[in-house]
Amino acid sequence: MLYAPAPALLMFFGSDGPARIPLAMLVIFASAKMMAELAERLGQPGIVGEILAGVLIGPSMLGWLAPNEFLSALSDLGAMFLLFRVGLEVKSSELLKVGGTATLVASSGVVVPFVMGAAILLAWGAGVNEAIFVGASMVATSVGITAQVLSAKGLLDAVSSKIILAAAVIDDVLGLLVLAVVSSLTHGRLDFIQLGLTALAATAFTVIVAKFGTHTMGRLVPHVDRKLKVAEARFVLALSLLFTLALMAVYTGVAAIVGSFLAGLALSESARPRERDLAQGVSELLVPFFLAGIGLHVDLSAFAHPATAVLAIVILAAAVVSKFIGCGLGALGLGKADALRVGVGMIPRGEVGMVVAQIGLGFGILSRSSYGVVVFMSVATTILAPPLIKIAYRTLAEEGDTEIGDEILHVG
Amino acid sequence: MLYAPAPALLMFFGSDGPARIPLAMLVIFASAKMMAELAERLGQPGIVGEILAGVLIGPSMLGWLAPNEFLSALSDLGAMFLLFRVGLEVKSSELLKVGGTATLVASSGVVVPFVMGAAILLAWGAGVNEAIFVGASMVATSVGITAQVLSAKGLLDAVSSKIILAAAVIDDVLGLLVLAVVSSLTHGRLDFIQLGLTALAATAFTVIVAKFGTHTMGRLVPHVDRKLKVAEARFVLALSLLFTLALMAVYTGVAAIVGSFLAGLALSESARPRERDLAQGVSELLVPFFLAGIGLHVDLSAFAHPATAVLAIVILAAAVVSKFIGCGLGALGLGKADALRVGVGMIPRGEVGMVVAQIGLGFGILSRSSYGVVVFMSVATTILAPPLIKIAYRTLAEEGDTEIGDEILHVG
Repeated sequence: MLYAPAPALLMFFGSDGPARIPLAMLVIFASAKMMAELAERLGQPGIVGEILAGVLIGPSMLGWLAPNEFLSALSDLGAMFLLFRVGLEVKSSELLKVGGTATLVASSGVVVPFVMGAAILLAWGAGVNEAIFVGASMVATSVGITAQVLSAKGLLDAVSSKIILAAAVIDDVLGLLVLAVVSSLTHGRLDFIQLGLTALAATAFTVIVAKFGTHTMGRLVPHVDRKLKVAEARFVLALSLLFTLALMAVYTGVAAIVGSFLAGLALSESARPRERDLAQGVSELLVPFFLAGIGLHVDLSAFAHPATAVLAIVILAAAVVSKFIGCGLGALGLGKADALRVGVGMIPRGEVGMVVAQIGLGFGILSRSSYGVVVFMSVATTILAPPLIKIAYRTLAEEGDTEIGDEILHVG
Repeated sequence: MLYAPAPALLMFFGSDGPARIPLAMLVIFASAKMMAELAERLGQPGIVGEILAGVLIGPSMLGWLAPNEFLSALSDLGAMFLLFRVGLEVKSSELLKVGGTATLVASSGVVVPFVMGAAILLAWGAGVNEAIFVGASMVATSVGITAQVLSAKGLLDAVSSKIILAAAVIDDVLGLLVLAVVSSLTHGRLDFIQLGLTALAATAFTVIVAKFGTHTMGRLVPHVDRKLKVAEARFVLALSLLFTLALMAVYTGVAAIVGSFLAGLALSESARPRERDLAQGVSELLVPFFLAGIGLHVDLSAFAHPATAVLAIVILAAAVVSKFIGCGLGALGLGKADALRVGVGMIPRGEVGMVVAQIGLGFGILSRSSYGVVVFMSVATTILAPPLIKIAYRTLAEEGDTEIGDEILHVG
């Protein structure tokens, strides 16, 4: 079913001709959706199929497409709109309520994978700097994957879902600090004042927007909407807020997707069904580019050496187990079932681990094969997590909406 | 109101940092919408503001952004979704009904501008090849601009609107042939067999899809929708058709936007409000990139020489008058009011004239200054046309929907 474009079409991939854009759009979008359909029919979440579509058409298998500037920009936008849409479905007040547990989950979910990853590399005979970088690349959760699975199943209201979302935001701030520390350590002295300012800026930005964003937008949006003559004014405002907060997030050091999520949160109470539908349209188009884009990065040539393949399997197992244990322990206060959900929900590393690995490669600290191992771990955790999440949430999905609502009250 | 990004932010424009994407998105989207708001307040169509925003932030004025691969890809996608959405609002049977008049409009709308443009350049002292290329660049109408104005005012139902849309599609096929002839002429021999095959492929593609697309999709979409398990299956099918027909259009020689328009047409009777809303969301995001992208190409440095500036004004006047007369004459059978509407509706040249000019520049046939003149003509016609369209359609907009409906019956 995936042999759609004839070989004759492939010559256009490298060209600047007018076929380039529609061809790339068709190949990625259609193959992602065909694989999603296949995954759903096999009882798996569609998202797994969309990531695998990227692996399939990417350089290591069919070789139809390789990551390029245009595709990576669409992938970034897809991740931003995915998190924006998820933010629109969540109330910030409910996220702030679970802030304590989420901080615990994020912290132990950072320490355990870092220590485990670095220890494995040291035992493997790698240098200290390389071990530290591989450990750092195992720290950050890619919240988009879990959020997409939970959103598709209508499970964002569950308390464990909120803890996962809040913990993923905190995790991003912690990951930023880990990366800053690791980069400084491997380059010379550690500047504690700089580090403190970074932590302060990132924390202040996320907390202030989460705490006051909803109220501000609730007052501002209807007022501005009445004044504007431009068509679809509320959606125009929403997109402007999305890009503004994504940009501010980058300037304060956290990821653009955290800013996008905060923009969604800020609008979650004032947005009307119309804006949600319009945002959904953009998500439907762009999210497959984010998902397939993750898969495109897989490079199986790193596995030519059996030793590297073994290391990759060991690191993947450690990545799964360490997040599961670290985050699960942090959420144990909610009972075993929710701790399990939080544990599996934090497993996907996605694009975040790859960014750290790219920095390590750029610094000359990570070898090509360690880089390949980290990329494999990042992609494989995103593919393994959705089926695990589906299993962990099975009872909750069966209980229905009322039960989930009750469960929130127990904790709040 | 356009001084939003502080100068400190601008250093990121050239970098590959994570701020690049959200910054470019924010600067273009927000400035396009602010200028649209300004234009609306001045009683002008918002679209004029969005194009001027591109001129303002582009290289010839503020210099915040220059055209690049990412922006031009978003611009291409924006044009595709604009035409797709317009196609969704039009019934292909009604377009086919006005096919005869539209062919007349398109043909005389190609001949008059070509002859007038080439004659002016010859009188100006340019070589024959350069004169032919400038004439060719004045041939093709950029239907997106007119379609956006008419769609925003709810005027796509008018008979003149349908003639404009149908004539623009035919115009694109004729423009393709003119470009093929011109390129061959200036390069040596003319291959009539090749030319005939090109004409046949382009005509067959558009006519077959316009004639049988709606019926096929009306039967296929509900059937496939029932079989698919993937979420938003009808929208997934719509996007897949859009990219497929855009790609096929490019392969048969016409523009990707013609394929996108045909995809919209094919779905116009089977699409539900849900798919229209989702497509509208994508349009709202991407169309400003198409419009501002046109403005970004303006390079006023070509006007350093007074002689070039005079030529630019003369060519612009000729571009407006020749399309108005050529297309207006073709539609005279409908009465003076509708001939006037069709005449102004076909004036915008937009991105199409620029593509021809780029080919001429690449062949070494157009000088830098002639290239600048053509780009100025292309952008200026897109800015001048919307207010003229607004005036020409004023009486129709006041008469309301019933009158427009009646008018269709008179012709059908």
